[in-house]
Amino acid sequence: MSELNKESIKENFIEDFLNPKSIAVFGANNNLLGTMGSMQLRNIIAGGGFEENIFPVHPRLEKVQGFKAYKSVFDIPIIPDLAFLILPTRIVPEVMEQCGQKGIKRLIITSGGFRESGSNGLELSRKIDEVANKYNMRFIGPNCLGVFNGWFRYPEKNNAYFNTFWIYLPHKRGNISIVSQSGTIAAQTAWYTNDMGVKIGKSISVGNERNIDIVDLLEYFKDDPQTGVIGLYIEEIKRGKEFRKLVKEITPKKPIVAIYAGGTEAAARSIMSHTGSISGDDKIYDAVFKETGIISTNSISDFLYYLRTLSQAQSYNVYPKGKRVGIITDSGGPGAMMTKTAELYGLEVPEFSKSLQEEIAKELPTTASATNPIDVTFHENFLNMLIKFPKMLVKSKEVDNIIAFGIYDFDEIMEVIKSSGGEIDERMKELENLIEPVVIKPIKKLMKKYSIPVFYAGPVPYRTSLMEKFSSSDIPVFSLWDQPTKCLAMLINYSEFRNEHNKAL
Amino acid sequence: MSELNKESIKENFIEDFLNPKSIAVFGANNNLLGTMGSMQLRNIIAGGGFEENIFPVHPRLEKVQGFKAYKSVFDIPIIPDLAFLILPTRIVPEVMEQCGQKGIKRLIITSGGFRESGSNGLELSRKIDEVANKYNMRFIGPNCLGVFNGWFRYPEKNNAYFNTFWIYLPHKRGNISIVSQSGTIAAQTAWYTNDMGVKIGKSISVGNERNIDIVDLLEYFKDDPQTGVIGLYIEEIKRGKEFRKLVKEITPKKPIVAIYAGGTEAAARSIMSHTGSISGDDKIYDAVFKETGIISTNSISDFLYYLRTLSQAQSYNVYPKGKRVGIITDSGGPGAMMTKTAELYGLEVPEFSKSLQEEIAKELPTTASATNPIDVTFHENFLNMLIKFPKMLVKSKEVDNIIAFGIYDFDEIMEVIKSSGGEIDERMKELENLIEPVVIKPIKKLMKKYSIPVFYAGPVPYRTSLMEKFSSSDIPVFSLWDQPTKCLAMLINYSEFRNEHNKAL
Repeated sequence: MSELNKESIKENFIEDFLNPKSIAVFGANNNLLGTMGSMQLRNIIAGGGFEENIFPVHPRLEKVQGFKAYKSVFDIPIIPDLAFLILPTRIVPEVMEQCGQKGIKRLIITSGGFRESGSNGLELSRKIDEVANKYNMRFIGPNCLGVFNGWFRYPEKNNAYFNTFWIYLPHKRGNISIVSQSGTIAAQTAWYTNDMGVKIGKSISVGNERNIDIVDLLEYFKDDPQTGVIGLYIEEIKRGKEFRKLVKEITPKKPIVAIYAGGTEAAARSIMSHTGSISGDDKIYDAVFKETGIISTNSISDFLYYLRTLSQAQSYNVYPKGKRVGIITDSGGPGAMMTKTAELYGLEVPEFSKSLQEEIAKELPTTASATNPIDVTFHENFLNMLIKFPKMLVKSKEVDNIIAFGIYDFDEIMEVIKSSGGEIDERMKELENLIEPVVIKPIKKLMKKYSIPVFYAGPVPYRTSLMEKFSSSDIPVFSLWDQPTKCLAMLINYSEFRNEHNKAL
Repeated sequence: MSELNKESIKENFIEDFLNPKSIAVFGANNNLLGTMGSMQLRNIIAGGGFEENIFPVHPRLEKVQGFKAYKSVFDIPIIPDLAFLILPTRIVPEVMEQCGQKGIKRLIITSGGFRESGSNGLELSRKIDEVANKYNMRFIGPNCLGVFNGWFRYPEKNNAYFNTFWIYLPHKRGNISIVSQSGTIAAQTAWYTNDMGVKIGKSISVGNERNIDIVDLLEYFKDDPQTGVIGLYIEEIKRGKEFRKLVKEITPKKPIVAIYAGGTEAAARSIMSHTGSISGDDKIYDAVFKETGIISTNSISDFLYYLRTLSQAQSYNVYPKGKRVGIITDSGGPGAMMTKTAELYGLEVPEFSKSLQEEIAKELPTTASATNPIDVTFHENFLNMLIKFPKMLVKSKEVDNIIAFGIYDFDEIMEVIKSSGGEIDERMKELENLIEPVVIKPIKKLMKKYSIPVFYAGPVPYRTSLMEKFSSSDIPVFSLWDQPTKCLAMLINYSEFRNEHNKAL
C-alpha cells in the first residue's frame, strides 16, 4: 500500500473536481424553489470559496443570483477549472462540445435521462463519451448531484466548502468520505449527519458513472490524507476486478462501510430505472464484501452509525483489543437490554472481580448494583457515572470496551424547575461547565492511552445540550440504547480484521 | 372475550391507581433537583387534575412545593384514595402500617432496596406483604416509578394527566398502554414518543411486582376502552399460565408488542440486580410469544415504531389485506433500499400493469420512472407524490400497501431562500396550508375506505414542519427510510394473525 502522500494526491485528477478555483454553471436561474440547478448554484455560492470566479451561463438573463451571466461559455473571460451542467438532456452534448472548444477539461453533469431512460438515452450517452474523448475531458455523472467538499481549498480558506447538492444543509467536515450512486445518500442525509455528529468531509454523487466510477474515487481516497473512513452506496460495480484489488489494499488501513441496494428482483427493476445499472445477486456481493473486509448493511441508520463509530476510532486510533464490555447504567432496563444485545452480537459482559466490585460499591447507594452492568440507580453524583466509573473500569483491565448510559438534558430540567418556582442547586449549574475539563478531556486521554472505546448513551435526542456537548467533541454518544452494542460489535470485528491484516503486511 | 364495557372497567381495582381523586405523598421536599420524590411530586402537581387534594407528608417542613405539609398521615383531613411512597426502604413497612390504620387502600411504592438487594431486602418484602394483607391493601412496586395516565379523570378534566414519573415530559395521550418492569421504558422514552408521535395514554412502571403484576394490568387493559394497543417490557413473568391464557384472548383484538430483556447469561445477572427476577431461557419466551401472538423485539426503536404503527392501524381500523407494496419515491436510492428490504422482509413489490404505468407516466417528467417503485425524481409538483399517486395506487387495486418517500422541510427551504435574497413562489407558501385539506383529510378517508395503509417518509427529522403536520394528524410518517418496510412487514403479519383468529372466534 502506498504511503499517504500530499504530493501524489494533488496529482490525482479527482482533486480538480473537489478543489476548482473557478466554475461555469449551466442551467441555473433566479428561481430558488422551482429549479434544482438554482438551488445548486445557491449552495455553490454559499460555500464561500470561489469569490468572484463563478460564471453562470444563461441565454437571456443579465444576472443570476447576483453574478454576471454569460450568453455562452465563449463569453467567459477565463477558462474555468470546472463546468457544472444541469440542462435538458438533449442539449448536453452540444454544450459539452462548446466547453471542449473553450478548453474546459472537467465537468459535472447533473442532468438525468441518459442510460436509465432507454434507447434514446443510450445514444445521448454515447455522444457525450465521444465529446469527452475528443477533448480529453473527464466528467462526473450524468444523473448525479455532484460533489460536497468540506475541505475546499483547505487550509488557505479554512471555513469554505464546495457544495453542488441541492439541499441547503452542508455536512460537517470530518474524516469520512462518501461515494454514492444515489444523490440522496450523498446529500440528503445531512440533517442526520449534523444531528448525530457524523462528520463527512467529502461526498460524491457519481450517478450513472459514464466516465468516472467508484474505482476512480477509491483510488483517490486511498491516498487522501483527509479521508480516514469510506462510505459506499452501490447499485452496481462496473469494474469488479479493479474494485476487489483496490479495496483489499484499503480496508486494513481505512475501513469501508457499504450499502448494496440490489440483489432482489424488484430492487433490480428499481435500480434499472434509477441509474440504469444491472445489479447482481446479493450472495455475490456478500462474498466480495466479506473477502475484501467491507462492512455492509441494508440500513441507512446503521450505515451512518457505523461510519461515525469508525471515524472516531480512526481519529483517536482507539481500536479495542477484545470483546469484553463493561456497562454502567442509571437504569436497569436499558442496562439489561444492552447486556442482552451485546451477548447476542457475540460480545462478553463478564462479572467483575470481587475487588473491583468492592471498589465500585463504595461509591454507590445500597440499592445499586456493582456487578456488570453497574446499576447506579438514581444518581445524585452525576460525575460518578460520567467519569469516575469509566476510569475505574479502564484501569481495572477487566474490560476492553465501556458503555455508560445516563446522559440527560440539564438545560430542560433547570428550565422546568425554574418555571415551577424551584431553586437551582449551584453545583448543578456548574456541572455543565465541568463537562469539558472534568469528563471530555480526561476520557479522550484514557481512550487513547488504553485503546479502550468509551461509548456514552442516554434517552434524550441529539439536539439536547449534553448530547451536543459530547457529540461536538467527537466523543461517541448515542441517543437511545439500540446502537451502542451494535456499533461496538462492528468495531470489534473490524479491529480484529485490521490487526490480522496489518500483521500480515 | 368479554365486550368492552365502561361499567366493568370502572370496577377493576387498577382504576383506583389511575384515577384517584386525592393523593398522599411521602418523601418529597422542595429540592427539585436532588431528590427523585420531589421531581415526582412536581409532576403530580403539574398534571393538574387533583386541584387541592394533594397531601405531602413531611416530618419537618410546613409547606412542600406550595402545598400544606402534614407531620403524619393521621393529620390529613380526609382519607386519600392513594398513597405515594418514596422513602428509605427500612421505614416503608411502618409508614404502610400507618396508611393502613388511616384507611388508605391503594399505594404506589417507588422505594428500591427490596427483593433485588439480598436477604435483608427479602425480609422487608415479606413485611410489606403482611401489612398489605392485614389492611386489605393493594400496591404497585416496590422499586418502580409508578404511573402515567393521560386519560386522568377524562372527560370531566379533559387536559389533566396523572404522572408520578420523575422526568418532566409527559407522553401524549393516545390508545397505547404500557406495562413495564423498567421505569425508563415506561417514562424516559417520552422524548422519543413525543417526537415520533407515539401516543401513550397509560404507562405503568410495575417494579418488583410484589403485589400487582403484569397479569393484573393485562386484565385491566383487556377491557379498557381507552387501550387499543399494549406494550410490555418484561424481565420475568411470574404467573405464566395466567399470562398465556389472558394474552391469547387479547392479541386478536388488541395487538401486544413485547421486549423480553432476559435470556442470556449476563442479562440474567443484570436483571437479578435490577428487579430481583429470575429470567428464563430466550427460547421459552420466544415460544410463548409466538403461541400467543405477541410481537417481540430486542430493540427500543422497533418497539416504539411497532406500537405507533399498530396504534394508527387500530384507531382507523386500517389492516392491510395482503403483502403487495406500492412505492413512490422522489429519490432512487431510498426507493431501491426500501424495495430490497421489503423483499427481504417477505413483502412483494409487484411491477404495475401497463395501463397503470401509462396513467402514472402522464404526470411524470421523461426522466422519471412509472414502474414500481415510481421514481418521480426531482418534483416541482409536490402534491403528485403526496396525494395524486397514492390515490391512483389505492384505486388501482394492484397494491395492498403504499409507501411514499419525499417529505421535506418547507419552512427551512423558504427561510434559506429569503436569506439568499430569493423570491418565494406564492403557490409554495400556500402549499403548507393545503396539506391538511388536500392531503391529510382525503388520505385518511382513502385508507379507511380501502383498508390500505399509506406510509409517508422523508430524510428530515421529526421536528421539521411537514413531519410534525403529518405526525400530529396521526398519519404514519417516518424519518429516514429504514422503518417503513419493517413496520409494514410487522403490520401485515399481525393482520394475518388477526384475521385468522377473529374468524376462528
